[in-house]
Amino acid sequence: MGSAREVLTAAASMDGLAVEFGEEPGGAATYLETGEPLVAGALERFRDEYDAVLKGPVGLPEVRKPDGTEAGVLGGVLRNGLDTYANVRPVRLLPGIRDSASPIDYVIVRENTEGLYLSRGSGVRNERAASDQLLMTRVGVERIVRFAFETARTRNGAPGDGVRRVTCVDKSNVLRSFAFFRDIFDEIAAEYPDVEADHRYTDAAAHDLVADPGHFDVLVTENFVGDMLSDLGAATAGGLGTCPSGNIGERTAYFEPVHGSAPSIAGQDEANPTSQLLTAAMLLDHVGAIGTAKRITGAVEAAYADGSVRLNPNGTPTCGTKGVTAAVLSRL
Amino acid sequence: MGSAREVLTAAASMDGLAVEFGEEPGGAATYLETGEPLVAGALERFRDEYDAVLKGPVGLPEVRKPDGTEAGVLGGVLRNGLDTYANVRPVRLLPGIRDSASPIDYVIVRENTEGLYLSRGSGVRNERAASDQLLMTRVGVERIVRFAFETARTRNGAPGDGVRRVTCVDKSNVLRSFAFFRDIFDEIAAEYPDVEADHRYTDAAAHDLVADPGHFDVLVTENFVGDMLSDLGAATAGGLGTCPSGNIGERTAYFEPVHGSAPSIAGQDEANPTSQLLTAAMLLDHVGAIGTAKRITGAVEAAYADGSVRLNPNGTPTCGTKGVTAAVLSRL
Ligand SMILES: CC(C)[C@H](C(=O)O)[C@@H](O)C(=O)O
Ligand SMILES: CC(C)[C@H](C(=O)O)[C@@H](O)C(=O)O
Repeated sequence: MGSAREVLTAAASMDGLAVEFGEEPGGAATYLETGEPLVAGALERFRDEYDAVLKGPVGLPEVRKPDGTEAGVLGGVLRNGLDTYANVRPVRLLPGIRDSASPIDYVIVRENTEGLYLSRGSGVRNERAASDQLLMTRVGVERIVRFAFETARTRNGAPGDGVRRVTCVDKSNVLRSFAFFRDIFDEIAAEYPDVEADHRYTDAAAHDLVADPGHFDVLVTENFVGDMLSDLGAATAGGLGTCPSGNIGERTAYFEPVHGSAPSIAGQDEANPTSQLLTAAMLLDHVGAIGTAKRITGAVEAAYADGSVRLNPNGTPTCGTKGVTAAVLSRL
Repeated sequence: MGSAREVLTAAASMDGLAVEFGEEPGGAATYLETGEPLVAGALERFRDEYDAVLKGPVGLPEVRKPDGTEAGVLGGVLRNGLDTYANVRPVRLLPGIRDSASPIDYVIVRENTEGLYLSRGSGVRNERAASDQLLMTRVGVERIVRFAFETARTRNGAPGDGVRRVTCVDKSNVLRSFAFFRDIFDEIAAEYPDVEADHRYTDAAAHDLVADPGHFDVLVTENFVGDMLSDLGAATAGGLGTCPSGNIGERTAYFEPVHGSAPSIAGQDEANPTSQLLTAAMLLDHVGAIGTAKRITGAVEAAYADGSVRLNPNGTPTCGTKGVTAAVLSRL
């Protein structure tokens, strides 16, 4: 987060943009102090006072609630609290990371407010059984599918064959909720004759994102499935440390790296800040500072392309967190 | 299926084993004829009369039930009908397919009778919403976790570092059903001090199976998650056409390739029969014909190792279905 703040401030000042930062504590530490994972009033301030929200990784696996789930996780609080229904996860292979026969440049649009995760905190459990519910609504599916088609129309980047397409990822062959999802997808797709409507079962999508990523442009899917597929996609593109994400709603949006908190390497100059840097660029793009966003993504790409940033097999940068930050700062 | 039958018969006769085949129609065509996806009495015959069951791919995406799900799919009918609770999916990179820095040789043990798929046929759906339920029981989780630890103790093959381990794949940080799954996993793990107990969240597992497959030995997980992860694993190991699977219960077991029916290439000498051949070997191993099983897997490996079988980028063999069959037959 320190790295992103530094780069964002530097890039903005080059464009004559003043940035004022506020800080709102949240996550495992906040839960341990206050019993809540987010300080009081933060949600309202995110919605009403800030222009944009940049979130850092916050969880701690060992801090758990009595039901066994993690206490510091902010996903439900923020995503449902702010109704940021579209979790946008671009997967792009940066230059120099590895060779791929099939180009990797697509966006996963993950539904962020319903699906299986709507059950968080309300699943039932006793000694003999446990259950969670996967719930989809027409309103929820319609808006996420529309969002995906709009993304396909407007995004920079394209699949290997240059065809604008949205792939609906579902398990409609087995489950009624997913059949519902697909039927609504097909309805909305008819409103976008300029974009190809495409389908994959969840298992086939997991296969094809590895075997043939160049096919994909925009994918749209349920919350839990999108969570898995975006980590999978990140793995094919150099790891979680390279992938940004945005949580977009009608009124508010917040931006965060795809990865979690990795407490084992925190503060040791080991983590790859690239995802947080590209996340800052997504944020700038969203608030209309498009030139400044491009300045950052351009600098990140240049630092990878000329070999200044290289990754270890485990995804950490050989030059350390600070080395990446310096390389990007000098290329802004 | 023709290929597997030929190879199985030839290998068995070399070992003085007589094999008698019966046929039981099932799938989309049977559904269209009879209104049921499996001929009457087949389930009972599978359980009481046959020594083993070898299943071929059967679905047709366009044959659907009124609720939108696929009519020819036999997963629920067979898996719940025969209570084959363990879906065993070995993922192994055959020689000559591609280079992998990290060895790929692990087994996914997918729970096969509950989880999200228990909801098939009973999800609710109207115009405005739809829902399915993910249900786990203590009995169900205990038996699948035990099965996974027993597999780790006895299987041939090992992860990159040679450590016997079982990885529990769950989303216990968010969902109560998965927290239940993990807690029971930890209880059972204590009974197996000789096997390492390991954990991954579902998203991290999807990442690490791509980025670091050499870490994995045996994975155990919920039905729907296992479905996605095993297709993902297959993609890293040369595609669905190379991966076998077994559905194992207390009384009955049936064996099938991981892939579906691929109607677009059916009968055109294009499909890769390898998965069906390795599936036949799994079946033989299960009924105690261990030498004959090894004969088949050895012949398959030899045919890949010496370059007689090569795969196109889309996973089909360059020598066609018949070419693979001939190459394996001549190496038995
Ligand atoms: C930390 C976790 C709750 C979260 C999620 O599952 O949504 C994370 O995996 C993500 O993808 O943002
Ligand atoms: C065809 C389908 C119902 C089935 C499943 O989802 O279980 C298949 O994907 C599998 O993995 O065996």
